[in-house]
Amino acid sequence: MTTAPRVTVAAAAGAAPPKKLSAEVVASNPYSRLMALQRMGIVPNYEAIRSKTVAVVGVGGVGAVVAEMLTRCGVGRLLLYDYDSVELANMNRLFFVPSQAGLPKTRAAAETLNNINPDVAVEAYSINVTSLEGFEEFKRSLQLVAGRGRGAASCEEGSSSATAQQGEGAPAPESRVDLVLSCVDNFEARMAVNQVCLELGQPWIESGVSEDAVSGHIQLLAPGETACFACAPPLVVASGVDERTLKREGVCAASLPTTMGIVAGLMVQAALKRMLRFGSSERRGGSFSSRGGTNYLGYAALTDFFPAMTLRPNPGCPNGSCLAAQAWAQARGPSAEELERDAREAEEAAREGTEEATHEENEWAIECVAGDGDGDPPASSAAASAAAAAAPAPPPPPPPSLPAGVEFSMPAAEAPRGPAVAATEAGVDDLMAQLAALNWS
Amino acid sequence: MTTAPRVTVAAAAGAAPPKKLSAEVVASNPYSRLMALQRMGIVPNYEAIRSKTVAVVGVGGVGAVVAEMLTRCGVGRLLLYDYDSVELANMNRLFFVPSQAGLPKTRAAAETLNNINPDVAVEAYSINVTSLEGFEEFKRSLQLVAGRGRGAASCEEGSSSATAQQGEGAPAPESRVDLVLSCVDNFEARMAVNQVCLELGQPWIESGVSEDAVSGHIQLLAPGETACFACAPPLVVASGVDERTLKREGVCAASLPTTMGIVAGLMVQAALKRMLRFGSSERRGGSFSSRGGTNYLGYAALTDFFPAMTLRPNPGCPNGSCLAAQAWAQARGPSAEELERDAREAEEAAREGTEEATHEENEWAIECVAGDGDGDPPASSAAASAAAAAAPAPPPPPPPSLPAGVEFSMPAAEAPRGPAVAATEAGVDDLMAQLAALNWS
Repeated sequence: MTTAPRVTVAAAAGAAPPKKLSAEVVASNPYSRLMALQRMGIVPNYEAIRSKTVAVVGVGGVGAVVAEMLTRCGVGRLLLYDYDSVELANMNRLFFVPSQAGLPKTRAAAETLNNINPDVAVEAYSINVTSLEGFEEFKRSLQLVAGRGRGAASCEEGSSSATAQQGEGAPAPESRVDLVLSCVDNFEARMAVNQVCLELGQPWIESGVSEDAVSGHIQLLAPGETACFACAPPLVVASGVDERTLKREGVCAASLPTTMGIVAGLMVQAALKRMLRFGSSERRGGSFSSRGGTNYLGYAALTDFFPAMTLRPNPGCPNGSCLAAQAWAQARGPSAEELERDAREAEEAAREGTEEATHEENEWAIECVAGDGDGDPPASSAAASAAAAAAPAPPPPPPPSLPAGVEFSMPAAEAPRGPAVAATEAGVDDLMAQLAALNWS
Repeated sequence: MTTAPRVTVAAAAGAAPPKKLSAEVVASNPYSRLMALQRMGIVPNYEAIRSKTVAVVGVGGVGAVVAEMLTRCGVGRLLLYDYDSVELANMNRLFFVPSQAGLPKTRAAAETLNNINPDVAVEAYSINVTSLEGFEEFKRSLQLVAGRGRGAASCEEGSSSATAQQGEGAPAPESRVDLVLSCVDNFEARMAVNQVCLELGQPWIESGVSEDAVSGHIQLLAPGETACFACAPPLVVASGVDERTLKREGVCAASLPTTMGIVAGLMVQAALKRMLRFGSSERRGGSFSSRGGTNYLGYAALTDFFPAMTLRPNPGCPNGSCLAAQAWAQARGPSAEELERDAREAEEAAREGTEEATHEENEWAIECVAGDGDGDPPASSAAASAAAAAAPAPPPPPPPSLPAGVEFSMPAAEAPRGPAVAATEAGVDDLMAQLAALNWS
């Protein structure tokens, strides 16, 4: 198998230890407004961004903007994947300029990004991830040590218990990237990203913009913890229609820089919240957490509607790797890292609950009233959280309510109620063997 | 008074009749994906964008992206205002590149935009709209015929009845721009934009991003029809604090390319919907309509919350021009254009209500259920709309409910209930005299 073309730009920054970000407030410091996030208490440790590696698959109307935002945020390393070239017909979206027409998108993007921020190491892969060769190259490029087999890689991050138990078929982190951001425009490519991420236990965020350009979405997919892309495929695909037959001669999809820019912004925001642990992605099971919060955010431009929902793993998913990941997630319970985080958050919540707000002036007599999910929980709820954190495996939360306008077609009583995978008496070695069998079936 | 520096780029395209947009689906056509919006029935007439002029005040983290999106959409003419220069500290936001550091933002932006799409005429004004001179130059630059007095200008657009009755102090359209987009970062500049737009009867959209970078908003302000910026100023300003005393030495505001890109995208989306008459900005009083829909859209990044609300004119607004505009809007009633639009929409709604959806297959038995505000109204509601369209001045809708977590501190019974301005027996000439007196008081 030949190695696909690969261009690495500004590798020096990636090879050297992460550059220390200056927080100095001077006009010449490109990081001053970002480090202010840390000084203002929004992000606990902004500099952690220098140690993050993000893969962006598809460098088009969404992906190119995603890559630029991450570059301007000072991410450590970016991996870009696309097999297409820049066309003038792309000029109605942000990022590429007419003088780049004809260049491979990955190469043009890497050069522009290097001009914007040479501190970011960019690896550009001109490959088609839906081809057999491209799929393998894509997977290899994400792996911790390129070319090494599954299960043999060591992990820089991830919970220590998961690393210790890691074996063939186990969806534990084997990837050198912190997040894969899928910005492709077809089902086949999404399924390729889904498969690689399931095999590597790699969380990813999917994005999509409708063909009429006026709606879009992002969705977090964490193997075993949320739905995978095969758990609930698009309706048209689930009915067996070949997506390629839907395209008609001389008809092109509409697109707008607005919708694509908004979807890119929402995607990078979710990525930053997850990687840098701020906002509701990490606190109290809020949005874009893989642990009970919503993991889908939509945008309907015509009505300014932003539906959010939770997509749980499908115990009948046709993808064996997903079933294996579900079993693995069920068997391992919360990791040491998660338990520690729960305890920390419960402690914070308890502290916040007992501290009384003090204001020198309050001439308008403004009061805080309990909101629906965003406010601080009262002290009793904090105590409950602390108790929950101490228990090894909390029961799964109740099924989410459906968004307005959607109702179950099947009687609700027939919907699965219990945990996705039944409890078992089997030991870890037995489970490992079962997982391996499932994963390759 | 000296004329402020003014740079015009690509004026030829603006001076010549609007270029015809090609809808041909070829890689070399930069408009193919935009013209597809028209072919797909999303936008009734996309080419109308070539006749639109938009002013962007403030070319920073939001304004520069707004200008780029409009340029890529093929807007006819862009007016840019900023007095600042590009700094490396701006590199954490989209658009500017390090090699532009030190250049005036307007000049750097105009050059970049001209490279992206030379079909767009760009006028760049390096002025501070809060200075006395800058304020006057800003106002003159928006007027239909630069330097001509108020009330003397002829109108290309606007309802014929408003034009016929136009006189000193009347907030009728006197502006050559279709929309002003405010992307400034301080209260003083917003008040300057507000004043000029009130004096010209010019609708505008305001945008803002919080100093901690994790929330933002957009708001439509149509003189007399919605709240103006002085109707409900920010709390800290209403209490008499000078905004400049809030800035501390060595402390800079945080910013993120994500939040700013999302706010820019929402702003241009609202502008496109309003100018090209698609989506709920023009249909059935939906979002970003000045006629009864919501005109404020917020974005809270930490929780993925998007509050929408309606801000009506304040009958006690301290700004005399706003009170004059309110009286004018009240006196004129719906314009001929508005009546025609109402009738057309009522007819469409009635037709949609009687047409039954036909599907060849529906194997999952999917049903439409009534949503909360997004679905088609039933036929009876369409009939009601048609009846309302025939009446000259429909009563104002009930006051909006408050978003979750906010409650009235004052007893609700004391809130104003009736129309903002009392009915009067005075003739048009009397009203004109009253308006003029109010406007200059």
